[in-house]
Amino acid sequence: MEKFLEQAYLYDFYGELLTEHQKQIYGDFVLNDLSLSEIAEEQGISRQGVHDLVRRCDKILKDYEDKLHLVEKFLFIKKQIQEMQHIMESMEACEEPEKLGRLRQISGEILEEL
Amino acid sequence: MEKFLEQAYLYDFYGELLTEHQKQIYGDFVLNDLSLSEIAEEQGISRQGVHDLVRRCDKILKDYEDKLHLVEKFLFIKKQIQEMQHIMESMEACEEPEKLGRLRQISGEILEEL
Repeated sequence: MEKFLEQAYLYDFYGELLTEHQKQIYGDFVLNDLSLSEIAEEQGISRQGVHDLVRRCDKILKDYEDKLHLVEKFLFIKKQIQEMQHIMESMEACEEPEKLGRLRQISGEILEEL
Repeated sequence: MEKFLEQAYLYDFYGELLTEHQKQIYGDFVLNDLSLSEIAEEQGISRQGVHDLVRRCDKILKDYEDKLHLVEKFLFIKKQIQEMQHIMESMEACEEPEKLGRLRQISGEILEEL
């Protein structure tokens, strides 16, 4: 998986286990796409300090994933739901439009939750 | 949710974040359904000691869930998948048996993962 996307998933799943300080800086880096220098200036710490904190958070979050595998599990389910949606879109011969519509609706709700 | 089931889910999701000692005792209590006295004898510690450890693990695991809400999220998805399966079972008029069969298969795979 692309590094940036992996960081975003890890942050999304386990970010609440970081301290407020870590969350703010890592979130600025991963989600708000700020550079190390921008964050350093904003926080009044050195660029190296931000760099070290980001690396430390990477490790903390990866350690959680290595133990719990919840991002992996979630990505598997997401892929499966997307395959179901793909199949449902191709079921033109299905004479159950209302039920098929409801299935599509639920699958969409699940993807929103993931 | 029933207390015992809730403990089992919390253990299933976050148990790897406990220490080995906590995992063993809490697992014996929650999954293997041993009594406090049985575990106390097995571990060579007091019944009160086991009781306190179980309560402490309850709190640790609940704190993780309060922060991450992953059990809640996965239970929601499980309920949605079960509803999809229920609907698919009633789609007799659907002239796409192979595709419907594949949808059922995928939904079963997702439930196994949850």
